[in-house]
Amino acid sequence: MTSLESILAGKYPAKAHARRVAEGLQSRGHGSHGIIYLEAQKTRLIEDNDEAMPFRQRRPFFYLSGCLLPDSYLIYNIDLDELTLFIPPADPEAVIWSGLPMSAVEAQKRYDVDCVLPTPEVNAALSLIAENNAGKAVAFVIGDQVSDSTRFQGFVEVNTSSLQSVIGNCRVVKDEYEVALLRKANDISAKAHVAAIKASKSATNEREIEGAFIATCIAHGAREQAYHPIVACGENGATLHYGKNDDSLVDATTKQRKASVLIDAGGEYSTYCADITRVFPLGGKFRPEVRQIYELVLQMQMECIEMLKEGIQWEDVHAHAHSVAIKGLKNLGILRGPDNELLEKRISVAFFPHGLGHYLGMDTHDTGGNPNYEDEDTMFKYLRVRGHLPAGSVITVEPGIYFCRFIIEPFLNSDETNAYINTDVLERYWSVGGVRIEDNIHITTNGFENLTTAPKTIEEVESLAL
Amino acid sequence: MTSLESILAGKYPAKAHARRVAEGLQSRGHGSHGIIYLEAQKTRLIEDNDEAMPFRQRRPFFYLSGCLLPDSYLIYNIDLDELTLFIPPADPEAVIWSGLPMSAVEAQKRYDVDCVLPTPEVNAALSLIAENNAGKAVAFVIGDQVSDSTRFQGFVEVNTSSLQSVIGNCRVVKDEYEVALLRKANDISAKAHVAAIKASKSATNEREIEGAFIATCIAHGAREQAYHPIVACGENGATLHYGKNDDSLVDATTKQRKASVLIDAGGEYSTYCADITRVFPLGGKFRPEVRQIYELVLQMQMECIEMLKEGIQWEDVHAHAHSVAIKGLKNLGILRGPDNELLEKRISVAFFPHGLGHYLGMDTHDTGGNPNYEDEDTMFKYLRVRGHLPAGSVITVEPGIYFCRFIIEPFLNSDETNAYINTDVLERYWSVGGVRIEDNIHITTNGFENLTTAPKTIEEVESLAL
Repeated sequence: MTSLESILAGKYPAKAHARRVAEGLQSRGHGSHGIIYLEAQKTRLIEDNDEAMPFRQRRPFFYLSGCLLPDSYLIYNIDLDELTLFIPPADPEAVIWSGLPMSAVEAQKRYDVDCVLPTPEVNAALSLIAENNAGKAVAFVIGDQVSDSTRFQGFVEVNTSSLQSVIGNCRVVKDEYEVALLRKANDISAKAHVAAIKASKSATNEREIEGAFIATCIAHGAREQAYHPIVACGENGATLHYGKNDDSLVDATTKQRKASVLIDAGGEYSTYCADITRVFPLGGKFRPEVRQIYELVLQMQMECIEMLKEGIQWEDVHAHAHSVAIKGLKNLGILRGPDNELLEKRISVAFFPHGLGHYLGMDTHDTGGNPNYEDEDTMFKYLRVRGHLPAGSVITVEPGIYFCRFIIEPFLNSDETNAYINTDVLERYWSVGGVRIEDNIHITTNGFENLTTAPKTIEEVESLAL
Repeated sequence: MTSLESILAGKYPAKAHARRVAEGLQSRGHGSHGIIYLEAQKTRLIEDNDEAMPFRQRRPFFYLSGCLLPDSYLIYNIDLDELTLFIPPADPEAVIWSGLPMSAVEAQKRYDVDCVLPTPEVNAALSLIAENNAGKAVAFVIGDQVSDSTRFQGFVEVNTSSLQSVIGNCRVVKDEYEVALLRKANDISAKAHVAAIKASKSATNEREIEGAFIATCIAHGAREQAYHPIVACGENGATLHYGKNDDSLVDATTKQRKASVLIDAGGEYSTYCADITRVFPLGGKFRPEVRQIYELVLQMQMECIEMLKEGIQWEDVHAHAHSVAIKGLKNLGILRGPDNELLEKRISVAFFPHGLGHYLGMDTHDTGGNPNYEDEDTMFKYLRVRGHLPAGSVITVEPGIYFCRFIIEPFLNSDETNAYINTDVLERYWSVGGVRIEDNIHITTNGFENLTTAPKTIEEVESLAL
């Protein structure tokens, strides 16, 4: 067994998470007489249909249980440090069609909880806790995630305002098990990126590449995608949220295969996400303009990653990416003017309009980033993480350079900014579309670990695409 | 262009569907002063997340529009025979990230509607219609599918009780365009079944086979699965609603590859579904017991399909499948006793517990089947279609024989039924799991058309799996 496999062979550390969340509640001034109460996602049908909706476990519930079953409940008794999972009992009619569900004994073996009970017991358990606390217990819940049937009889307070944000904060710092899950999601997704690049050789449409990516994820146990994949050939890469993934790889006018494909996709493994972007050439050789932009973005990314360690200010890393972009775009002749003026006037935002990255965990854009979308500074408005990075956080580093008319043209049309951009040179780059390179980085006290193993150098990518 | 492609190059017949629905309303005694009002599915976010939920267009809206855009509205003015589609206008902030949305001009070209307007115009359009009808107009809507912001000012009545069921009835009979869409979904899914069988040769787990199926669907334009795929190897095939799809293809005890795989999966093409089940051997050769059951199920299916034409009573076809099953299971020595007694005592229900099939269209279990799940006759209780089949309907024919302990054991434990089953012979068949063979059949006035082209004979299936 590899060290990754041996970590994952253990139990998801639900109990440790419950304790951390309880400490988080106490550090906000809440007492210890009380419980944390969480619910799994419900089984729900598609509207007007008898098929179940795609199931996605509620993240706060998973964080304190490690359990992927729907229709379950969880109580953490803070005083007694006791974690109880309530799972649905077998329904004889359902067993005929679907087989036996997980038993309490199996659940007890599989999950890091003290006790497993059937869901109909939840109200009795709540009553008993209230009684034992002589009416002084507080129930911490997530407001809109409590079933109508759940009764907090005898509790002095049902607090709906603290739990979700405390869990969100706890989730920023990942433990060893969580990092292993993120690494596993990354390993699978790296295989899928390789398969996607290889599939491009015979593909005629973006969707064939997408199919190869998704199939590889499923084949390796990442049934769900962490987010809707982006597979964008040619100029489609300039559309940041492109998701149609159904365009021909052949240009309708020139009848030539397009220059390159941007793929931003990652699998989800046991609720933990990978988020990886790669760009590769169609036909095995980057066209010169694409290669120039690729080299620049790779330099932005490598320099930013090298800066990372516990305590680094994320805004500084993001600003550094812009500084590298400015130098690079000046070298190519696309930008002109003094570096500091280009930075102050936020000219590079025309080519790199989004944030450098975001926390990654059970959500692709994970909790705890404290963005400020009201920021009037265009360079920081879309930055999804603000402030210092703690050791144990996992963050994406995903600089990009795009040639998107909707974003660049306002800069060309403004007298304040148009002098900084050489439109003659720019003309040659519109067909590049966009280049983004994205890895998932684990922040440590002394530096970082790159969890992303998908090939990234020009040589690797070209040889796979050939 | 093939005839299929040339049909699909035309417009989805939204206007004809609107007229049929209006006629349906009138045949229920409603007047013609009025409108049909429908809404598309909304863009919705995943709970506690900034990613959009998987989008599935509302079927009634699609039926009268052919439009896959979210957040849109539709008004059919019955009096004037005028169909108006309202689509979301471009949002400048969204354009930067997502590119331009479909314009009214493009929508007008693409959809079979008389007029395309931006969604903010919908209340003004409704007011105008009310005014022109001097307060006599009725708005036919689906009760829980109307936005809070929509105002039916000036309408004499908002009828929430008729529209959904009338549309449901209209949908039973498919027109040429709809049959072409179902055929296209079938063609893609047949390719995916072939890919799945081929993938089984090197696969070690069910999920690799599932991945190959889904990738092939996506590659050919069926981005969504019509329903959650079932990929069940060995005895997993006995669990009718098996959906884990993550079991090893190698038996843990014998270390041998399991005998066969059941795959029940179909892609969705432009909201229209395929629903196909195939069983294939691992290693290219059916094991004798599996082959015997396969031959029996295939005979059940072929004889039932041969019976099909306009007006046939579906219960008769279902009962015929049971008669064939009884003969076959007697031949194998699993059942004993007179045929008519075995049928009357519903003994074959132990091996073929579900219905023979269901209507197929925009929903996998399509509208208008009028099942009677309260039926006390176990043979008909789960039959999803009751009564005569009209020409133009499309129905699945999916007999199966299963060796499921949860279903068969009550028959073995009952003194009324146990004498009919030879447990010594049965013992050899538990490992078969289950065999189901499912095609999608278009009912015509003189007979039927089989829309399913996936390989089905033992020779074809064995040669693909070899």
